[in-house]
Amino acid sequence: MNFRPSEKSQAYLKKLKAFMNTNVYPFEKEWMEFNKENNPDGHWTTWHEHPKLDKLKNEAREQGLWNLFLPDEQMGQGLSVLDYAPLAEEMGRVYNSAEIFNCNAPDTGNMEVLYHFGNDEQKKKWLVPLLDGEMKSVFCMTEPNVASSDATNIETSILPDGDEIVINGKKWWATGLGHPDAGLAIVMGKTDTSAEKHKQHTMVLVPLKAAGVEIKRMLTTFGAYDAPAGHGEVHFNNVRVPKENLIQNFGSGFAIAQGRLGPGRIHHCMRCIGAAERALQLAIIRSGTRKAFGKPLAMLGGNAERFAKARVAIDQARLLTHYAAWKIDQVGVKESMTEISAIKVVAPQVLQDVTDMAMQIHGGGGLSDDFPLSSFYLQARALRLADGPDEVHLGMISRLEFKKYL
Amino acid sequence: MNFRPSEKSQAYLKKLKAFMNTNVYPFEKEWMEFNKENNPDGHWTTWHEHPKLDKLKNEAREQGLWNLFLPDEQMGQGLSVLDYAPLAEEMGRVYNSAEIFNCNAPDTGNMEVLYHFGNDEQKKKWLVPLLDGEMKSVFCMTEPNVASSDATNIETSILPDGDEIVINGKKWWATGLGHPDAGLAIVMGKTDTSAEKHKQHTMVLVPLKAAGVEIKRMLTTFGAYDAPAGHGEVHFNNVRVPKENLIQNFGSGFAIAQGRLGPGRIHHCMRCIGAAERALQLAIIRSGTRKAFGKPLAMLGGNAERFAKARVAIDQARLLTHYAAWKIDQVGVKESMTEISAIKVVAPQVLQDVTDMAMQIHGGGGLSDDFPLSSFYLQARALRLADGPDEVHLGMISRLEFKKYL
Amino acid sequence: MNFRPSEKSQAYLKKLKAFMNTNVYPFEKEWMEFNKENNPDGHWTTWHEHPKLDKLKNEAREQGLWNLFLPDEQMGQGLSVLDYAPLAEEMGRVYNSAEIFNCNAPDTGNMEVLYHFGNDEQKKKWLVPLLDGEMKSVFCMTEPNVASSDATNIETSILPDGDEIVINGKKWWATGLGHPDAGLAIVMGKTDTSAEKHKQHTMVLVPLKAAGVEIKRMLTTFGAYDAPAGHGEVHFNNVRVPKENLIQNFGSGFAIAQGRLGPGRIHHCMRCIGAAERALQLAIIRSGTRKAFGKPLAMLGGNAERFAKARVAIDQARLLTHYAAWKIDQVGVKESMTEISAIKVVAPQVLQDVTDMAMQIHGGGGLSDDFPLSSFYLQARALRLADGPDEVHLGMISRLEFKKYL
Amino acid sequence: MNFRPSEKSQAYLKKLKAFMNTNVYPFEKEWMEFNKENNPDGHWTTWHEHPKLDKLKNEAREQGLWNLFLPDEQMGQGLSVLDYAPLAEEMGRVYNSAEIFNCNAPDTGNMEVLYHFGNDEQKKKWLVPLLDGEMKSVFCMTEPNVASSDATNIETSILPDGDEIVINGKKWWATGLGHPDAGLAIVMGKTDTSAEKHKQHTMVLVPLKAAGVEIKRMLTTFGAYDAPAGHGEVHFNNVRVPKENLIQNFGSGFAIAQGRLGPGRIHHCMRCIGAAERALQLAIIRSGTRKAFGKPLAMLGGNAERFAKARVAIDQARLLTHYAAWKIDQVGVKESMTEISAIKVVAPQVLQDVTDMAMQIHGGGGLSDDFPLSSFYLQARALRLADGPDEVHLGMISRLEFKKYL
Repeated sequence: MNFRPSEKSQAYLKKLKAFMNTNVYPFEKEWMEFNKENNPDGHWTTWHEHPKLDKLKNEAREQGLWNLFLPDEQMGQGLSVLDYAPLAEEMGRVYNSAEIFNCNAPDTGNMEVLYHFGNDEQKKKWLVPLLDGEMKSVFCMTEPNVASSDATNIETSILPDGDEIVINGKKWWATGLGHPDAGLAIVMGKTDTSAEKHKQHTMVLVPLKAAGVEIKRMLTTFGAYDAPAGHGEVHFNNVRVPKENLIQNFGSGFAIAQGRLGPGRIHHCMRCIGAAERALQLAIIRSGTRKAFGKPLAMLGGNAERFAKARVAIDQARLLTHYAAWKIDQVGVKESMTEISAIKVVAPQVLQDVTDMAMQIHGGGGLSDDFPLSSFYLQARALRLADGPDEVHLGMISRLEFKKYL
Repeated sequence: MNFRPSEKSQAYLKKLKAFMNTNVYPFEKEWMEFNKENNPDGHWTTWHEHPKLDKLKNEAREQGLWNLFLPDEQMGQGLSVLDYAPLAEEMGRVYNSAEIFNCNAPDTGNMEVLYHFGNDEQKKKWLVPLLDGEMKSVFCMTEPNVASSDATNIETSILPDGDEIVINGKKWWATGLGHPDAGLAIVMGKTDTSAEKHKQHTMVLVPLKAAGVEIKRMLTTFGAYDAPAGHGEVHFNNVRVPKENLIQNFGSGFAIAQGRLGPGRIHHCMRCIGAAERALQLAIIRSGTRKAFGKPLAMLGGNAERFAKARVAIDQARLLTHYAAWKIDQVGVKESMTEISAIKVVAPQVLQDVTDMAMQIHGGGGLSDDFPLSSFYLQARALRLADGPDEVHLGMISRLEFKKYL
Repeated sequence: MNFRPSEKSQAYLKKLKAFMNTNVYPFEKEWMEFNKENNPDGHWTTWHEHPKLDKLKNEAREQGLWNLFLPDEQMGQGLSVLDYAPLAEEMGRVYNSAEIFNCNAPDTGNMEVLYHFGNDEQKKKWLVPLLDGEMKSVFCMTEPNVASSDATNIETSILPDGDEIVINGKKWWATGLGHPDAGLAIVMGKTDTSAEKHKQHTMVLVPLKAAGVEIKRMLTTFGAYDAPAGHGEVHFNNVRVPKENLIQNFGSGFAIAQGRLGPGRIHHCMRCIGAAERALQLAIIRSGTRKAFGKPLAMLGGNAERFAKARVAIDQARLLTHYAAWKIDQVGVKESMTEISAIKVVAPQVLQDVTDMAMQIHGGGGLSDDFPLSSFYLQARALRLADGPDEVHLGMISRLEFKKYL
Repeated sequence: MNFRPSEKSQAYLKKLKAFMNTNVYPFEKEWMEFNKENNPDGHWTTWHEHPKLDKLKNEAREQGLWNLFLPDEQMGQGLSVLDYAPLAEEMGRVYNSAEIFNCNAPDTGNMEVLYHFGNDEQKKKWLVPLLDGEMKSVFCMTEPNVASSDATNIETSILPDGDEIVINGKKWWATGLGHPDAGLAIVMGKTDTSAEKHKQHTMVLVPLKAAGVEIKRMLTTFGAYDAPAGHGEVHFNNVRVPKENLIQNFGSGFAIAQGRLGPGRIHHCMRCIGAAERALQLAIIRSGTRKAFGKPLAMLGGNAERFAKARVAIDQARLLTHYAAWKIDQVGVKESMTEISAIKVVAPQVLQDVTDMAMQIHGGGGLSDDFPLSSFYLQARALRLADGPDEVHLGMISRLEFKKYL
């Protein structure tokens, strides 16, 4: 056993940290000011309108801090899942900063679908602009009318019709639908409901500008739009795409989804750990600089103990995430189900708890947009549902545990 | 001991429940639809623009369901704090519905200040329109630059100057500042910083239209404006009011604040319990009507157990709240500090936990404005800071506990 | 609503508290010393050998502090379940002291069975000596070979044979089997396994000296014998008793058990609350008198906050217990299932948690017999299984909750 | 990063597992039966009287499964702390089985003190018989009259007197004092109370047969003697030992203690993880083989979820323990204080929680000596105090955390 990151990972981390310090933390601050002034209504952020964003993206790309998530040597940087873990954690320290490095969800998961399951034509047409950061994408799985945590419930139909494929159905929680560059939806639906349970699903590539794609509304989370990319409800009304847009075959959608969700889930968890570290740091600094009842907050009541518990919880979550990453690298997603489900339950919850604590330390300010805490909180809260609610993951873990002995 | 509400309380509850069923639940539904259509930006609700709101208020008033919180026979309905508990709980089931009955924070607390500490002139000028629901008010205590959970930190100055009083300082988390009828601020500041620690504070009545009152900005909580009344940052720049606006004397502000916070806190807790009951009800209904993996959600994993634990937690929170109300009625706020602090810690946390659970049952929808859950969640989360953070209340309880034995 | 105990309950409490102060606390101390000296092996306590015990019982009886649990005016003191609550709590402050007042489990539950379901002959023969404290008893329900939390699993047979009844089966966790005066077992078994599920059980009175009653062994809990009364495994090998020993009818055992468990469970909870209060008191006193790192333990880390949380948890558990007692008095056990199950889950857990905390404050000493904490802990831990494990009670609560809406 | 144990560690683990399967699990079963028959009083186990124990020790030694904890190539097996982790975990699955491999506390910690700080004479005289398993030892630090979690409170005096050293003081929780072969005490006391805070302490080697060593009593934990080695109270009344028995110098005791506690603490944690794994395994097997309400317990209520949560908690505790072991190997104890304190808080708590859950699954039996659960529970509960209570470790973590930012 060895807990030191690889040389390659360390080298990238050094470069990334420098970039964060020089560029991203200052940008976070500037943008928060910019947003307060330019967005009095507060309903949608000005993130994409900030004049510096594109500059930062270009610089990140020039420095090779681009598509770090993709294990491919040519298209990404050839980093393993485990190599990527400390990098994603670092990005997680600033809300949404992963976009600066083209490493944001759901694009990363969608690019992985295209990378692993797309044919050459599809890669050229869709993967390349996504890798270039010129296009953004959404993933359409969850439906408003059924409990989509059980994918067999899905009702959207994806049917062949001559040289075309016809899509009908309603999806929501399509993350990224509010991004100005959103162009592609990967849609999951059913083709043959008489087939075996896991052979009914199909995945298809749908341009968002296709006829019949109706963006019904953007959804609020806790009353706000989870800007800058948001989540949307989108209806597919007799949408027609050419057969070339089919990913793999009719009926292979379920298997693709399983493959997609493994790395996607763990990337979320890596970022959660970085966000939790940041929240703890903010809490400690605030608690050392504000006084009440004659003492710094840090010395009051159980505050010090809460920091200690946060430290321990974060360290445990990080180790579990690294272990899951290592297992994925060694034996693949399928053999790492316990570990992936475990971090999916642990990491967002740790982020939620640490942020909740940090908010108490910050008083009212902690709830506002003056600090990144409320963004972290929403990120955590939403993640406890996204990519499978905690309860489904716990069920998965117990099933695998039973198999050992019963 | 006897756990049955008084005859009077039961009679009001019966009337109130009928009113809720006939009017408020349907209004909640209509308004949610109305808001979706008329408020695509989502940054501020349309609550006060809904054509039915004033009608409902009038009807509530005509039925005697008005100012139920005020123990006074003439100005209120002569209900004790304990009598009021089941009524406030019932209102808590629909977010913000307390306003329909002129029982919403912070107006109730402000009316109590005027009722108990205002002179006849002040009552006539300020209390009457507040009791009539014609004016709304804010309470300005928390400041951005200091840890205001320790009131001795407050920096705002309230100084006599001839026949006038001059106010200078910055306040934030002034709840209700976004209400269209907001007209009055009760401002807490310091007059003589050389006086004994608890004799330095003063409370003064400030019309929001006074010169020098600057509404700096509305604050977001979790990215949204906690509409329809919101929280604001307001600066007092050399604001001058006549001496008649002084509540009691210079230096009596701290004592008034203590008196104000007791009933205010417990009213919040009563509503939390109603909201938690509603959240549990919604969770159970949803879990019985959605299926995954071949079973209703209610039968999956630990869901049933979670409902049981929620039931127990809510019942315990209610009992503790009723007990605190009874103690306030019997021996007053000062002798009920342990109980008031206890419910202030317990009730919002129970609401947060039950709502968090209900959200998991609702999936993505639970985060959105399609259900009242996210409003309940924000209510709970904000209350864990408002009127004193949990940690300060726990400190109070332990101090009183030590006194018993040490 | 009214949270003041009845005049009668208050009068008894005053007398009981005086008795505790004058007699029981000193006895606890004397006995702890006595036991250390006379019981170097530690495997069984010397409680019943202490020369003062009988004297105390006599004095309690003379003062009318005897059989307080029984609502009957003649045989008990005519106290309602709710009246009894503060008294049982007070007894709970000293481990096992309920025996001094003839109010200890399982005798109280067994006496209630005889009181409610026994005929005149049975009352004369068995209830009278139990009420007089001359005989002690056990309740035989749990079996080693099946999950007895589901009473339909029970395998012991109770069959009629002419004028006799024949009992065959194995029971364990027969609490009180180690008491020197243990003379009677109430045994639950099945008579007709083809009958309807809840009409199969029978309860019968078995003298422990009957032929075929084999006390197989005394059971350890956490390695010790839970002295002074202990729990045993007892086998019934073709035990024969006269038909007169049948309680009610063949097949009525299940209904009797339900009736027995209601008050029995709540009495346990009342005592838990007293024990938890005592543990908190001990923790606070110890934390104020021991120093580390230059401060009393009370001022270190999160200790003060832990005391506050214990205060709140105990108060909530007491209120819930009182509420359940009130409901039993008002509408009976059957209509109070949610409340009885709720306190059965809450009260022992609160005692376990508070004691666990108090142990940390006491350091190593807290684990030893120098303090009553380890006894309280075992009491709590065992109660989370006795009379139905927590999980079964939560299941009951959720079933009743579902019925409200689904 | 790499989560695979070293080749050497894997090879030892394979051998150890075979030994456990062939010898130790059967011995556990035999001994439990043996103990029930030969120890009806239950106050002290028959572990050391079992005819097989010495045979097993010899066989372990012959197979090189001996002193695995000691990093030394000659005296131990040259395994690093990290290499040892999976081995100690495996031993932890059977209560007390570490003694079979001469790897039990407190001997391992005492041997490390002699190994690192003893001179050649001391090693020859004391370390060799300990390494041979011919002698057992105790560590005397905790005192009954002061909060010993703060070592500066210690009152025992260790004073030079010519060629002798004189020891006076009272110690308790001397673990292992009940072992039949206990021969040596390492005693910590103070020599110069006017010296700098951390230069006052001295450690000295005291033969238990020395004049003036008075074993006052064996202490109960939860009413039993924590057999087979137990914890004792021992008084040192003018005990005289030759100067040769001084470890290092007068005044170096504090530093030695710090060095001792690092590896000692982590060994405890490794064993906790093995015990927790065993408890989970037992719970799952029991829950799959017992039925209630028509289903295996595994399928009832929240049981499956509890198993999943236990799985995740154990995995996280193991990873944190391995990480701490790696850090100790890489940078030493002093630079690993956060990690050592973290596992010391986490691992016993996880064991306590998992065992508590497993007990609920086992019903009454789980509390008895029919299963190893109650032993595991006591092990966990005692460890939350031994080698520093949780609260002190959390305080340490928070202090180090503050240093990062304040």
